[in-house]
Amino acid sequence: MTIEFYFDFSSPYGYFASFKAEELVEGTDAMVSWKPFLAAIAFRATGNKPLAEQPVKSDYCIHDWERLGRFMDVPWTLPNPFPIAALAASRAYYWIEADDADLAKHFARDVFDAYFGRGLDISSDGVVADIASGLGIDPDDLRAAVKDPAVKERLKQETNTAIAKGVIGSPYFIVDGEGFWGSDRMWMIRRWIKRGGW
Amino acid sequence: MTIEFYFDFSSPYGYFASFKAEELVEGTDAMVSWKPFLAAIAFRATGNKPLAEQPVKSDYCIHDWERLGRFMDVPWTLPNPFPIAALAASRAYYWIEADDADLAKHFARDVFDAYFGRGLDISSDGVVADIASGLGIDPDDLRAAVKDPAVKERLKQETNTAIAKGVIGSPYFIVDGEGFWGSDRMWMIRRWIKRGGW
Repeated sequence: MTIEFYFDFSSPYGYFASFKAEELVEGTDAMVSWKPFLAAIAFRATGNKPLAEQPVKSDYCIHDWERLGRFMDVPWTLPNPFPIAALAASRAYYWIEADDADLAKHFARDVFDAYFGRGLDISSDGVVADIASGLGIDPDDLRAAVKDPAVKERLKQETNTAIAKGVIGSPYFIVDGEGFWGSDRMWMIRRWIKRGGW
Repeated sequence: MTIEFYFDFSSPYGYFASFKAEELVEGTDAMVSWKPFLAAIAFRATGNKPLAEQPVKSDYCIHDWERLGRFMDVPWTLPNPFPIAALAASRAYYWIEADDADLAKHFARDVFDAYFGRGLDISSDGVVADIASGLGIDPDDLRAAVKDPAVKERLKQETNTAIAKGVIGSPYFIVDGEGFWGSDRMWMIRRWIKRGGW
């Protein structure tokens, strides 16, 4: 069984969920497949407004993220710029994953940590190449890969597939075709896995 | 210490939270103050779109509510009409509360059960009067009360106060001035109460 973990690298709730995603399958033989996508494209499809256009909700969320960082005891900083289109990081993820899925997850964690843990601008190809370099990946190869039309196309396809599957935000988990939206729904996913359904 | 539990009688997540609100203070000397308000007015203030204008998100939520009903083992039905302006029920709540806060909570639970448990149209004064009647409240007194300008004004004031306090949806809890939005945040509220802050 594979659990799909859809997230946007620019999503704070996706960042918080990334610490808990693998816990979902502890003690089971299921696997978690990490799937970065561009949530802004999904928002356009669903008519959701971006947070920046909802000032009161945005203020609440900024406070909530800081609180979640403290409550979960994980690093948190509100990066600037925020949000960003995480094109380079998302493309790089799928390029790395084609060779080594575990390395890609490691890379994803390091990208999240760079952005929300240390406030680096991960919309920059150079920053993403540096992160990859720290994992033994050739930074020049990575810079070339994120400009490769086939790699660009892969991210487009993944984002379109996400939208077609009903992914309406980040994070979003799919288990047996059943969708769970939000970093607060881990308890429901665990129960679904345990019972094999409703 | 008093925990304010803001909710709209027409809010499914408010309904689900109502089963867990009193658990927050079990084993403490804190109290929960139930505060119905009109979320549609708050949505106008915050620029949030109502769910009906977000078809993809709406489909997700309809499924999510059914699933929550099963997972929480509580009655669930999607009422018709939905959503409604819960004027009569909200006004009646504050009118009852002025005399008897416990009876008002009992009434609130019965209103929620009528709407989301049994699918009755609680926008009707008659339905609300019947619910109150089942609790020994004179239905004619209640029908008169929900038309009383002072009672109407009370609900307006409560809704305006909610908005001024930053209440941006239903349910929304306030503890020590700290706001928590959503029925999934009980764990954070419990921790806040236990630690007396961050």
